[in-house]
Amino acid sequence: MLLKDLRTEVLEANLELVKRGLVLYTFGNASGIDRDQGLIVIKPSGVDYDQLRPEHMVVTDLHGTIVDGNLKPSSDLDTHTLLYREFLTIGAVVHTHSEFATSFAQAGLAIPPLGTTHADYFYGAVPCTAPLHDEAIAGRYVHETGLAIVNHFKQHGIDPLAVPACLVNGHAPFAWGRNAHDAAHNAVVLEAVAKMAYNTLTLVSNHTGVSQALLDRHYFRKHGAAATYGQ
Amino acid sequence: MLLKDLRTEVLEANLELVKRGLVLYTFGNASGIDRDQGLIVIKPSGVDYDQLRPEHMVVTDLHGTIVDGNLKPSSDLDTHTLLYREFLTIGAVVHTHSEFATSFAQAGLAIPPLGTTHADYFYGAVPCTAPLHDEAIAGRYVHETGLAIVNHFKQHGIDPLAVPACLVNGHAPFAWGRNAHDAAHNAVVLEAVAKMAYNTLTLVSNHTGVSQALLDRHYFRKHGAAATYGQ
Amino acid sequence: MLLKDLRTEVLEANLELVKRGLVLYTFGNASGIDRDQGLIVIKPSGVDYDQLRPEHMVVTDLHGTIVDGNLKPSSDLDTHTLLYREFLTIGAVVHTHSEFATSFAQAGLAIPPLGTTHADYFYGAVPCTAPLHDEAIAGRYVHETGLAIVNHFKQHGIDPLAVPACLVNGHAPFAWGRNAHDAAHNAVVLEAVAKMAYNTLTLVSNHTGVSQALLDRHYFRKHGAAATYGQ
Amino acid sequence: MLLKDLRTEVLEANLELVKRGLVLYTFGNASGIDRDQGLIVIKPSGVDYDQLRPEHMVVTDLHGTIVDGNLKPSSDLDTHTLLYREFLTIGAVVHTHSEFATSFAQAGLAIPPLGTTHADYFYGAVPCTAPLHDEAIAGRYVHETGLAIVNHFKQHGIDPLAVPACLVNGHAPFAWGRNAHDAAHNAVVLEAVAKMAYNTLTLVSNHTGVSQALLDRHYFRKHGAAATYGQ
Repeated sequence: MLLKDLRTEVLEANLELVKRGLVLYTFGNASGIDRDQGLIVIKPSGVDYDQLRPEHMVVTDLHGTIVDGNLKPSSDLDTHTLLYREFLTIGAVVHTHSEFATSFAQAGLAIPPLGTTHADYFYGAVPCTAPLHDEAIAGRYVHETGLAIVNHFKQHGIDPLAVPACLVNGHAPFAWGRNAHDAAHNAVVLEAVAKMAYNTLTLVSNHTGVSQALLDRHYFRKHGAAATYGQ
Repeated sequence: MLLKDLRTEVLEANLELVKRGLVLYTFGNASGIDRDQGLIVIKPSGVDYDQLRPEHMVVTDLHGTIVDGNLKPSSDLDTHTLLYREFLTIGAVVHTHSEFATSFAQAGLAIPPLGTTHADYFYGAVPCTAPLHDEAIAGRYVHETGLAIVNHFKQHGIDPLAVPACLVNGHAPFAWGRNAHDAAHNAVVLEAVAKMAYNTLTLVSNHTGVSQALLDRHYFRKHGAAATYGQ
Repeated sequence: MLLKDLRTEVLEANLELVKRGLVLYTFGNASGIDRDQGLIVIKPSGVDYDQLRPEHMVVTDLHGTIVDGNLKPSSDLDTHTLLYREFLTIGAVVHTHSEFATSFAQAGLAIPPLGTTHADYFYGAVPCTAPLHDEAIAGRYVHETGLAIVNHFKQHGIDPLAVPACLVNGHAPFAWGRNAHDAAHNAVVLEAVAKMAYNTLTLVSNHTGVSQALLDRHYFRKHGAAATYGQ
Repeated sequence: MLLKDLRTEVLEANLELVKRGLVLYTFGNASGIDRDQGLIVIKPSGVDYDQLRPEHMVVTDLHGTIVDGNLKPSSDLDTHTLLYREFLTIGAVVHTHSEFATSFAQAGLAIPPLGTTHADYFYGAVPCTAPLHDEAIAGRYVHETGLAIVNHFKQHGIDPLAVPACLVNGHAPFAWGRNAHDAAHNAVVLEAVAKMAYNTLTLVSNHTGVSQALLDRHYFRKHGAAATYGQ
């Protein structure tokens, strides 16, 4: 079976989303990429999670052409492929409609870095894209969704691995990482961070975030050459 | 046993409500209709969910006269029968007191379409009925509850399958669908949508909803001849 | 064993509170009364719920004198006994620190009847007592807690079976009923009603409650000679 | 094995945090001290909770020098050791990013004593430290975190066993107790108290807390020579 290990990793990332309560029914999808072969493994569309097996995963090239698989890929495929083409350091993408991250996306609000939990994973605010124009919605909508993410990161000079998630305005979050495990992990932490940001902002509405010094301290504790966290 | 398959489907819809945390104790009820025979299968009143069996379901005609069954039907029967008589395309009705949808009903507020999760299922706001007059409450109350729903949909020209749910003012939601599975599914998604709407509106109180273009895009992605979602 | 059946009923009521998520650790307690013998069965203080057996229950008379049992009774005993002495129609009392009912008690706010879920169980607002004076707190505090409840009901002419719960200001709820099963059931529904009232009031802060007609309709549907709910 | 019993107690305290939903992934850590030997047992950094065994615990002296163990200790070690050096009556320390306590820490708000649940465990507000200066963050950050806690308690004359928890500004809570069981218990109750304080303050924003008389009554009911709670 083509890309057997990657299929298993992508399946496990999908199931992690279910286990952590981030998806309802068939909402949500995860994918991973084999950069050497330029092939993407993605969840099929609308299949129950408890029936998903590695062989159900769909394999496409970087432009979404199906290379292997009998099922239709996730309807969000074109967002995934664009992220892989534009963010060359990422190895996996996850999309959920998790409750609190989606609520911020619906509100059109970025999630400001309000504490160290956030800073341990996201080096600055998790941004929210600009709303799509009607033409973009009526046109190549799923592709345009990816463009809105990519454009925001490029215009603001954000490293996708330093802030491995983005809220799509009026829609829901995308998260990513070096591999499928990390992408799912980031999506789970994003939801926890969003929940605490919701609580914090409903207690103190004008909070804008922690200091740059705290962001630096926590982010570099877990990332980069000087990281000290874990074994 | 009369309508054996429909009894099983209606029972499964009732149990899905329990599994998803939408009902407490014996709150909530689901029914389904056999349009050919003009017969309705509905949950009995006040029976514990873990004791419910297909043979406990009550069969009535379209005006609520019991055709088969020894137990009393759900006390909300007259709302169900009216919805079946007036909304000819629906095949099942579900009623719950699920937490967030009920909170909007208690607030007398429609749930505006704040994002794509909503738009995937409800083509516009999930409306809230006008409060009942005292005479309606003291009179044929359960029937009047159905009338309030039907009148709202007719006056606003809403297709019941395009917006398969309604909040009853000061009471709780009703949802429906082509069959019992869909009706329960819609009730579950309604609760998720209501929860995220609550979060969104408590972050940004003056949000009125996404664009018509986004509503169109998401709704028609899942519904109608051009639907592309799922297998 | 003295009062074997009542011990079992009281134990089951205590465990129902755990099952429904109303108590943390050893918080909360339930009791029941045998009116013929004038004897009360109550949970012992500070014993883990998973170790509770019928023989651990403490039996006291109506003034709290221990008649049977080696363990100390719940520290809230004097509130229970006063409620039994003053509310002659009740057969059981339950006390929890359930999250949302306690939050209203801490806010010093009654829970207004905002919808039919409330009206099905509580015929009007669930009241909140006046704060205790410092002398009452420093004196017979647990007894004074009961007095605050009883005084509120007497001064406002509320039938304890029509509104089978009260919030103690700055403390938490007490609920009761004809028997231990009903008292625990009322405590569970109170928490659900409090949660939805919280949501409703944070959406629409000036909501004062549903009409008297709706209160009448729902309350009498489930209570009294003309009740139509259930089998 | 050195300090076998303490290792087991500390492990159990760590697992209690998981069981009660206070930690996500490898967030959170607990430690305990053997005062006679001057040795601290602490959770290793970044190890999955379901793989933790007593032999994985790390033993250090009061200044954080590792005495026994092959794994790296929790990255929060220097906060733990400082608390043990300065708060001589405590026997264990717990750190979590539990949702509501962390939300108050992010908001920079103390948790005021809004009811008896709080008063049973915390004799006054659970304080929130002042934000750290950039130099402290860039310097001995984990040590400075402990200093911020200790300085607050000393400046305000708070007995660490009377208020066995503190919120670190922009970070999360620390809790402690006479032993590992008590420290974990206090962390769990702190989260419940924080959740109810959140609800209370979003209902009544200007609430400042219960009376000193109520604080006294409840605190001394459970603590000190005149305690009457439990067996």
